[in-house]
Amino acid sequence: MMKHNYSAGPCILPQEVFKQASDALLNFDNLDLSLIEISHRSKNFVAVMDNAVQLVKDILGVPAGYSVLFLQGGASLQFCMIPFNMMKLKDGKASYLVTGTWASNAQKEAALFGESHIVASSKDKNFSYIPKGYAVPEDSNYFHCTSNNTIFGTQMKAFPEVSVPMICDMSSDIFSRRIDVSQFDMIYAGAQKNMGPAGATLVIIKDELLGKSGRAIPSMLDYRTHIDKESMYNTPPVFSVYTSMLTLEWLKKNRGVSWMEGVNNQKAELLYSEIDRNPLFHGTAATEDRSNMNACFLLNDESGKDVFDAMWKEAGIVGINGHRSVGGYRASMYNALTVDSVQALVDVMREFERKQG
Amino acid sequence: MMKHNYSAGPCILPQEVFKQASDALLNFDNLDLSLIEISHRSKNFVAVMDNAVQLVKDILGVPAGYSVLFLQGGASLQFCMIPFNMMKLKDGKASYLVTGTWASNAQKEAALFGESHIVASSKDKNFSYIPKGYAVPEDSNYFHCTSNNTIFGTQMKAFPEVSVPMICDMSSDIFSRRIDVSQFDMIYAGAQKNMGPAGATLVIIKDELLGKSGRAIPSMLDYRTHIDKESMYNTPPVFSVYTSMLTLEWLKKNRGVSWMEGVNNQKAELLYSEIDRNPLFHGTAATEDRSNMNACFLLNDESGKDVFDAMWKEAGIVGINGHRSVGGYRASMYNALTVDSVQALVDVMREFERKQG
Repeated sequence: MMKHNYSAGPCILPQEVFKQASDALLNFDNLDLSLIEISHRSKNFVAVMDNAVQLVKDILGVPAGYSVLFLQGGASLQFCMIPFNMMKLKDGKASYLVTGTWASNAQKEAALFGESHIVASSKDKNFSYIPKGYAVPEDSNYFHCTSNNTIFGTQMKAFPEVSVPMICDMSSDIFSRRIDVSQFDMIYAGAQKNMGPAGATLVIIKDELLGKSGRAIPSMLDYRTHIDKESMYNTPPVFSVYTSMLTLEWLKKNRGVSWMEGVNNQKAELLYSEIDRNPLFHGTAATEDRSNMNACFLLNDESGKDVFDAMWKEAGIVGINGHRSVGGYRASMYNALTVDSVQALVDVMREFERKQG
Repeated sequence: MMKHNYSAGPCILPQEVFKQASDALLNFDNLDLSLIEISHRSKNFVAVMDNAVQLVKDILGVPAGYSVLFLQGGASLQFCMIPFNMMKLKDGKASYLVTGTWASNAQKEAALFGESHIVASSKDKNFSYIPKGYAVPEDSNYFHCTSNNTIFGTQMKAFPEVSVPMICDMSSDIFSRRIDVSQFDMIYAGAQKNMGPAGATLVIIKDELLGKSGRAIPSMLDYRTHIDKESMYNTPPVFSVYTSMLTLEWLKKNRGVSWMEGVNNQKAELLYSEIDRNPLFHGTAATEDRSNMNACFLLNDESGKDVFDAMWKEAGIVGINGHRSVGGYRASMYNALTVDSVQALVDVMREFERKQG
């Protein structure tokens, strides 16, 4: 049975990517060998890594002067790599916009290295909005923000103009919309939403940012190590990089992020309209900050929960239980989720309204 | 065409594992979903992680008081995590046995944290032997060794009795032979030899070792973080953990490491006998320290290289070019390589002798 997969991450990827990855595990590049049994130094895998890097550059329009890396450890390892590389040893100071759980974790991690300043936080209202109008101190070594908050369903629709380097965790919305990479000094993202399976982490970094912290940085935590070795300092996560490459090929073939942004707007509009129209539901995030990736909503009357849950399960919908921090439902509409899948959920919500009415 | 895959890592895994992993990418656990699109918090994946951990414990006989973790970053990230967690902030000192490239990298990394003492090194003879009879200073916070040196084809056949905690990098021979885990305070290994595909790192650690360094440790680098969260502090490398679980299931089903050790002895005996017998070749490692995993050997007369290379390629052999540090050939005979594949190489070496004779 065809499932409508609303999982928040790891999440749905294009069906053709699952098929291609599955095939490569049996016979990769017609080598009569599995993708995962060949050397990462073989020309076949080096081509995969090169291609994955080039696709990121092409799709996002990465300007000269930036390096593109595929690392391990997820965004969480970046939370300490960033201050290691970028917060000065002497009187180091960094500024963080705290818009959710991951943004908060990043900010806390930086406090091990120096002053970790919070420019603004939306914790007062359970991270249901994106603060605006904050000031970023000019003596900050960098400013850090999180473009999309998976758990709370909020998304930065614009990024501030700041006078210090801007670093953005785009784990849950990279490749979902157009961005101007030159606005950022570093962008990073765990692969497991719009890019690929868990196990790889994308880093896009302005080379001139590095080598200024004055810290002795362990080799694996030093971005220069990975830039110098083209993400092959040690064995890379072969399968995750390959499957990310497949997903990026799919995206490029389908006219890239401009097309994707249009589709994602359409899906978000479809679902949020229903949440707003249907008298049995309400959204949890401030309207202007609603995420196009993760829509969080609650039942107005919890007594209908069992009926509603049975209905969406019956329709083949999976993965829409809300995170415990918000409750209710979270429908994650990543790139590979089709408009038809969103329509299937909207249909269930309407049918539920009829039944309950 | 059936290949005989001698790749040094990533390397051959059981054929049934490739098939099972390939199937799981299309439909995992009969969920009508791919393995890589489900939440790592789902009961289906939590069962995978739990099973993988239990298999490690069962196969190696891990005693109580040790935790088993699946992390990211490879052995190389462990090189800095170990001193972060285990070398004391005040007057920290660690002792390293330097038997190859990776052992040397581990030793160098520790120097960022305190005194990184070399108890012995075989660098004087291009790491072609394992030093013995060294003393480990009693004021060391730990002693670190590398059980098998993939590049140079040497292997520790016994481990020293030391009065300080013993930590061993077993990346390239774990699960290939019986070990007494209680002899060690920590064992770690990149997955991509005998355990699974690249992208996961196994850590077996004695809990009482932790919390004594006096250092402020970044969350992702602190073993306690991962112990507390059962390797799920952040999204784990789902595919690599799953495929490692499949490989461990295969190993357990096939009577575990005692059986494997016998087969590996048989394969090594077969190949080394031919290297020693055949007048056209010679081995590079000291006989008593020869690795059962990686056999390094050279042609006595390099002028035969093109003929020999054409012959093994014709026989379907792949991945036996030596590492640039040693040259010649390196035949890696990991668990999933069959005796028949070793026989195929031996046959080519004999045929080459007849031709050249």
